[in-house]
Amino acid sequence: MIKRLCIIGTGLIGGSLARSLRAADFCQEIVGAGRDRAHLDRAIQLGIIDRGETDISTAVKNVDMVVVAVPLGAMADMFAAIRDHVSDTVIITDVGSAKASVVADAAANLAERISRFVPGHPIAGTEKSGVEASIDDLFKDRKVILTPTDATDADATDSVRKLWQAVGAEVVEMTVEQHDKVLAATSHLPHLLAYSLVDTLAGMHEKDEVFQFAAGGFRDFTRIASSNPTMWRDICMANSDAILSVLESFNDDLNALAEAIRSGDADKVFTIFERAKQARDKYSKNSSS
Amino acid sequence: MIKRLCIIGTGLIGGSLARSLRAADFCQEIVGAGRDRAHLDRAIQLGIIDRGETDISTAVKNVDMVVVAVPLGAMADMFAAIRDHVSDTVIITDVGSAKASVVADAAANLAERISRFVPGHPIAGTEKSGVEASIDDLFKDRKVILTPTDATDADATDSVRKLWQAVGAEVVEMTVEQHDKVLAATSHLPHLLAYSLVDTLAGMHEKDEVFQFAAGGFRDFTRIASSNPTMWRDICMANSDAILSVLESFNDDLNALAEAIRSGDADKVFTIFERAKQARDKYSKNSSS
Repeated sequence: MIKRLCIIGTGLIGGSLARSLRAADFCQEIVGAGRDRAHLDRAIQLGIIDRGETDISTAVKNVDMVVVAVPLGAMADMFAAIRDHVSDTVIITDVGSAKASVVADAAANLAERISRFVPGHPIAGTEKSGVEASIDDLFKDRKVILTPTDATDADATDSVRKLWQAVGAEVVEMTVEQHDKVLAATSHLPHLLAYSLVDTLAGMHEKDEVFQFAAGGFRDFTRIASSNPTMWRDICMANSDAILSVLESFNDDLNALAEAIRSGDADKVFTIFERAKQARDKYSKNSSS
Repeated sequence: MIKRLCIIGTGLIGGSLARSLRAADFCQEIVGAGRDRAHLDRAIQLGIIDRGETDISTAVKNVDMVVVAVPLGAMADMFAAIRDHVSDTVIITDVGSAKASVVADAAANLAERISRFVPGHPIAGTEKSGVEASIDDLFKDRKVILTPTDATDADATDSVRKLWQAVGAEVVEMTVEQHDKVLAATSHLPHLLAYSLVDTLAGMHEKDEVFQFAAGGFRDFTRIASSNPTMWRDICMANSDAILSVLESFNDDLNALAEAIRSGDADKVFTIFERAKQARDKYSKNSSS
């Protein structure tokens, strides 16, 4: 139970968290903060937040917890903006998709409040953006990764864990490095490939036929290329080392596959496809939905 | 209306075609052919075919149309097997995902029956395989591409068009080359990338965490990696030129994107993502489902 919570950025993730906490009756008051007055009014109208503030220092005043749900590129400024206006006992957490960059931004901008900062990342979302797309069960049975560092107070981590558990998430802890490597592989690289493939096809001379005859498999494969370009630009810049590293492995494997096709090595092509299918089917069986 | 139709290979596509034709009451008798007696019996039991034959010469005897729905690697042998047992007026078509290879196999093995052969490809399917996965509306509102050549009799093309229209498909014609290029881009390359990505991740030291924390976007992106490896090996070998050509364009674009990330060129990354999102959203709005 939290008395007063401030969510900075009430888009898909921030808005869905507010909705879910409300459904769980976990907060007495939820303050939404952001630059856009009309957006905040819409969130109040939808019953998602109790109060909306465009002034960050007002928004975080006397709150027990601050959830920073802004794009990765805006984290540093936001930490600097809240630092001098939060209480000693406040707990600060974020929902960023890369953690090393956020931890560095927090260390550089939160000053002594760094001990109250718990880096977090809910593994949930859709290709849609904005408060209108927010839903009250986005985190149910989803994983939330917390990556506390040596500087993080244990009680702060506990409180953030309880927040996410209240909305039905399964909370796990790992190191910042582990998180960034795993997410580069399972989320960031797939987005990169989907965006890049659609862009390649859109540049083809035959692009009209190409999109006209693209069927269901293509639709699923490229769904994530409809994601928010600003958010994904930020993720790529923030987690570039881990992304480029897994991309290199991928390129090596893809080149080997292309070479097998070029040289007519059908057995090798089959072996790769069969191995991938087994891994994919196993994942599919184990994943929650 | 067709009196007697033979479908060779009653898997997902052949089985679904049989079901759909039955629902449309378009054939008096549907003969299923294949190597596996138990599989044919199952199809009879499910009410999908009227009769099942493991001997191809018996299966195609006195039929008005033969639909060859076997993997691309088995096309040549199948054409050779039916050639001397079909009537002069028979119409032969296929459902293969690559057309140049099938046209070459037909030319080499159908002898004078080549004029009765209409190359075809229904743009439909799922990652599942087999008669159990077949459904009676798989082709409804889907596109079917026919690629008749100079050798193809016009009346044969007309009959195959009517067959697909009877099950609710929209039939379009294009050249063999156009088909293979468009499909390489929208279907074959995405499958290659999905298989290759899953295989890269399955080879990572952290593979257990990787698959454990892969969320919905990854599931959609990699769904096609659960497709039948034999079928996709055959497609890659059969359409290798077109696939390797579009893969080369993709690699160039992907390398440029990686270079933008490496050099910190956030604007370039944004431009690519934004352009791709626009193309993808436009496609999504125009596609039937």
